[in-house]
Amino acid sequence: MNVQKTTINAIRILSAEAIEKAKSGHPGLPMGCAPIGYTLFQNFLKFNPDDLAWQNRDRYILSAGHGSMLNYSLFHLYGLGISKEDLQNFRQLGSKTPGHPEYGQTAGVETTTGPLGQGIANAVGMALAEAHLAAKFNKPGFPVVDHYTYAICGDGCLEEGIAYEAASFAGTNKLGKLILLYDDNDITIEGDTDVTFKENIGARFAAQNWQVLHVDLATRPDDVNALSAAIEKAKARTDKPSIVICHTRIGYGSPLEGSEKCHGAPLGADNLQKSKEKLGWEYPPFECPEEVFTHCQKAADAGRADYDAWQQMFAEYEEAYPELAEEYKKQMAGEKPNFEEMEAELFNFEKPMATRQTSSKILNLLAAKIPGLMGGSADLGPSNLSQMKDTDEIKYGEFSAENYAGRNLHYGIREHAMAAIANGMQLHGGIQAYCATFFVFSDYCKPAMRLSALMKLPVTYIMTHDSIGVGEDGPTHQPVEQLIMLRSIPGLKVFRPADGNETAAAWISAMSGNEPTVLVLSRQGLPQYAGSSKEALKGGYVLDDCEDTPDVIIMGTGSEIDICIKAKAQLAERGVSARVVSMPCFEEFEKQSAEYKESVLPSAVKARVCVEAACPYSWYKYAGDKGEMVCMTSFGASAPAGVLFPHFGFTAENVVEKALKSIENAKN
Amino acid sequence: MNVQKTTINAIRILSAEAIEKAKSGHPGLPMGCAPIGYTLFQNFLKFNPDDLAWQNRDRYILSAGHGSMLNYSLFHLYGLGISKEDLQNFRQLGSKTPGHPEYGQTAGVETTTGPLGQGIANAVGMALAEAHLAAKFNKPGFPVVDHYTYAICGDGCLEEGIAYEAASFAGTNKLGKLILLYDDNDITIEGDTDVTFKENIGARFAAQNWQVLHVDLATRPDDVNALSAAIEKAKARTDKPSIVICHTRIGYGSPLEGSEKCHGAPLGADNLQKSKEKLGWEYPPFECPEEVFTHCQKAADAGRADYDAWQQMFAEYEEAYPELAEEYKKQMAGEKPNFEEMEAELFNFEKPMATRQTSSKILNLLAAKIPGLMGGSADLGPSNLSQMKDTDEIKYGEFSAENYAGRNLHYGIREHAMAAIANGMQLHGGIQAYCATFFVFSDYCKPAMRLSALMKLPVTYIMTHDSIGVGEDGPTHQPVEQLIMLRSIPGLKVFRPADGNETAAAWISAMSGNEPTVLVLSRQGLPQYAGSSKEALKGGYVLDDCEDTPDVIIMGTGSEIDICIKAKAQLAERGVSARVVSMPCFEEFEKQSAEYKESVLPSAVKARVCVEAACPYSWYKYAGDKGEMVCMTSFGASAPAGVLFPHFGFTAENVVEKALKSIENAKN
Repeated sequence: MNVQKTTINAIRILSAEAIEKAKSGHPGLPMGCAPIGYTLFQNFLKFNPDDLAWQNRDRYILSAGHGSMLNYSLFHLYGLGISKEDLQNFRQLGSKTPGHPEYGQTAGVETTTGPLGQGIANAVGMALAEAHLAAKFNKPGFPVVDHYTYAICGDGCLEEGIAYEAASFAGTNKLGKLILLYDDNDITIEGDTDVTFKENIGARFAAQNWQVLHVDLATRPDDVNALSAAIEKAKARTDKPSIVICHTRIGYGSPLEGSEKCHGAPLGADNLQKSKEKLGWEYPPFECPEEVFTHCQKAADAGRADYDAWQQMFAEYEEAYPELAEEYKKQMAGEKPNFEEMEAELFNFEKPMATRQTSSKILNLLAAKIPGLMGGSADLGPSNLSQMKDTDEIKYGEFSAENYAGRNLHYGIREHAMAAIANGMQLHGGIQAYCATFFVFSDYCKPAMRLSALMKLPVTYIMTHDSIGVGEDGPTHQPVEQLIMLRSIPGLKVFRPADGNETAAAWISAMSGNEPTVLVLSRQGLPQYAGSSKEALKGGYVLDDCEDTPDVIIMGTGSEIDICIKAKAQLAERGVSARVVSMPCFEEFEKQSAEYKESVLPSAVKARVCVEAACPYSWYKYAGDKGEMVCMTSFGASAPAGVLFPHFGFTAENVVEKALKSIENAKN
Repeated sequence: MNVQKTTINAIRILSAEAIEKAKSGHPGLPMGCAPIGYTLFQNFLKFNPDDLAWQNRDRYILSAGHGSMLNYSLFHLYGLGISKEDLQNFRQLGSKTPGHPEYGQTAGVETTTGPLGQGIANAVGMALAEAHLAAKFNKPGFPVVDHYTYAICGDGCLEEGIAYEAASFAGTNKLGKLILLYDDNDITIEGDTDVTFKENIGARFAAQNWQVLHVDLATRPDDVNALSAAIEKAKARTDKPSIVICHTRIGYGSPLEGSEKCHGAPLGADNLQKSKEKLGWEYPPFECPEEVFTHCQKAADAGRADYDAWQQMFAEYEEAYPELAEEYKKQMAGEKPNFEEMEAELFNFEKPMATRQTSSKILNLLAAKIPGLMGGSADLGPSNLSQMKDTDEIKYGEFSAENYAGRNLHYGIREHAMAAIANGMQLHGGIQAYCATFFVFSDYCKPAMRLSALMKLPVTYIMTHDSIGVGEDGPTHQPVEQLIMLRSIPGLKVFRPADGNETAAAWISAMSGNEPTVLVLSRQGLPQYAGSSKEALKGGYVLDDCEDTPDVIIMGTGSEIDICIKAKAQLAERGVSARVVSMPCFEEFEKQSAEYKESVLPSAVKARVCVEAACPYSWYKYAGDKGEMVCMTSFGASAPAGVLFPHFGFTAENVVEKALKSIENAKN
């Protein structure tokens, strides 16, 4: 057996062994796709095992994340820091080899995958980032940013809506350095793919402006030459992304080959043994012959040489273009301006404005100082006010196939892919990604937003039209439960600012740290409050206090702060002292010291009213046993916003009534 | 001007006038699509204005719901119960003419649309229901179920992932009586469609096994004949769904024609006047010439004749096939068995089982008694245990293009379309729809689940693998925040049963009433509890009580009930009395009387512990000021489930500790 075949079989057997030991996992993909992984790593993928974070590396994503053992076997063989012990700890707590690839848990894993289709959209985002940075930084003879993005996907990924959305976007934008390797194995969990999925995949991708290539790895399972030729063709085509449709056999080499039975469960000791026999594998468990490692080292050494050449080239680039090189380094490091120095500009609002307007103002101030800031809307730019507007000094431009240097994106009506593309841009490095839509359509983005949080990616979500304030468009367009949906995602910051200063704080927070941030913004105009300030960065603060100890605390967010303040004034007329607390970001408030929290919400003051035009679940924690709610307990309705707020009880009078009730409650 | 042209212009002008009066709305679509709406209603749509709920009517959906005035103008002209006053009340509180079409708010509206793409998937569900019921009930000479499903969509719908998923499913299943009319107007909110969407739509649908037809309404705006010919062709093709690509001009007739400026805002008085002049419209506001109504009445009368013929045919069918006719009537009425008579069967569990297993048992008991019960999984059937299994008496079969009579569906890896298709099936009538996936992928279904709730559709969602109990698959597959995400949707019931009896109660609840129900089920085996019973129908109940007044209440759901009960026993050893409350469904518990709720959770007992392997936001309401939480405050991890539960604090010991702490809290 030649070393090529042995290496491919090593991937198969190591994967099956680790899954067998873990008593859990998916052997079908790694065994079927082993030649794809091998060809990529051996002949194409540009990587340096000594510096996996090298900025100009090729990006490689396993979108079919359940096949994670394919990665770990490859990483083991090619020296990416996965040891034999790591393989033996597959799917164990804290190991470098979790059940699905997890960004941050395993060096070399470019993104967390498992929820199907996401990896394809992440890859689109990475290819977009590459195209943009190349347009900005490359100079003749200096291809500083110049790499490919490869993704392996299965039927599952391609059946998901997000994959079509992302592919459509990539085709429209001619992302020619994106290469998708499709593991076309005819099998899904419920049986033959034909039961549910009879599309002509090639025709579909051609319709979406992709180059379509075919390789038959089913009848010629280890035909590395054919696959290499196809990948060469894919690389050569620069004006279209490419898909290489690889016809494969799931679980190749095992007695369960070609059956859904080998998709998601260990083969079993007996079938594992038979697989070894069929593949002529004669090594002890988790062992490979030395010639395999030697062979793989050649690819790794080629990557090291590429790396050295790039470093050399970059040194010359620094000579030739010192300012650009400096900017490149700052942008890749994600350097941010000193926000304190910008405070006079940022916290500078007088006239009433919708928070989508105040956000637009801040976005444009920041865009001028953060060259990596890049984003757009899912076809709601004019409503979300999410565009960076040209100034005399800066032309932001529109990103398109004709202008990769543009920083304003048009994601199209593809909220789900938008969020996942933003994740990909952020993961690539060099880009501070944002995206925008109506807040109610955070529902469409949710699976990708969850991954922003899981991966700790500081993507910014601009979400406007944030309540029944939407008005006439009615309940389909009025968020009710979306605030709690997002507040409940671990590690996501949700800001719902009440005015301009709070919006500035929200943006500063979004541009700081390593968490995604959602900006929940009003459609309708709102006042500017004398008491608002950068205290909003603490997530909750006293916006408008009474002189003595408050009889009642009125707390809320966003547009409802207005009626909280009016209610306070009405209560004062009745001799009742109220404190208004603005709570723009629960997550930041929870990070404050116990002393600070107690100073804002003294535990002795049991009378509390929580006011937010959204589902009340968010508030019980702060309302306490004696508190009252002014919240939404049903869907909204189609009518002018000015009619809806009183209709659903959002009036100062109602807040006053609830405040008095809570004061009564607190007496008992 | 002939009456045909006048009628088409009537649609345009009435729509623009209503939008002008409301100072809000989307004139571009109704003005551009007026000939499409006209052709459909005048020449094709089978409807009876006197009985809009006629079961054999054609179904018509405006998937591009922002164009709602197209519907209201058509309904007004064709006698579907929309008066001049209704038009004048467009987008006002409580009117029959809300901003987007709302099912239940306006007779004749078949589904709520607005969130783009949903209507296409609803239409697929309706066409599927028609195909299934036809296969079951039709007999030679008796086409009892025999209608078409039409949907009008725009670019926005077709860019959304859900539309591709649904189209792929429809093509695979050869739903030949589904006809999609695509308003191809080259414009989206951010400008020319080309900026973001360069797909070859015809080729795309052909790749998905659709018939593709083209009509040019851009250069020949009112070419009803060409459109009629295309729809005839679409109807004639029975083995493929059809798309008619109608090239149109957005806002036809207005000075803003062809521009995104007429998409989503009133034309303005001046442009409205100019539109009237261009179209030769000379009637007072909201008035049409009598000849238009007379003309439209012909189509309505044709529908009445169809209706009468169907009634006659059905009377004969009842003679020829009395049993089948009886079954048809029962199934269309959604008749349910007497669950009380089934109690001995339903509440009958002894051995430990996962709740996905107990659910499978109940599902199969119910399937035998509810002939309309129909559903399946998004390719996770073997894991969700969502299949109806053949018995000696009943063969359920697999739904496919070759077997429309089958009741087990294979939705494919398309969670979003799955949920929206289920909505469409339920909306059609005659079907009790369910669907299934892993609980974490409720994220992918969310936008359609929200619409189930908004429309009050009793779709059942079977969602298994409901917590860190998933184990090795890791955080991407472990739900944490999904329970609160769903509990916060108004009108959605979320059941997380602890054992078999509670699962039976959950299914009974799902099959009763007019709300969607989510069944949140464990992967792992769970005990059966002596105290569990149909009391679970109340949503919360005392599962395991102490003899005296409890010192502490321990409450939880699902798999965590086990450690609640163990903690109770450990507390008893220390002389502490604990009551265990099971809370399988918060929404049902909240519907109970104040007395009942007080009897379960006596307000005097302040010491409480809430135990659920999910985000704590759900529980503050019940925990009270003195309560403690044993919940998830981070994402999960990849490891065996037996490792993860203690790792994240889900042990009886930790519950005991929290109980003692809460007792301490309560003393202060």
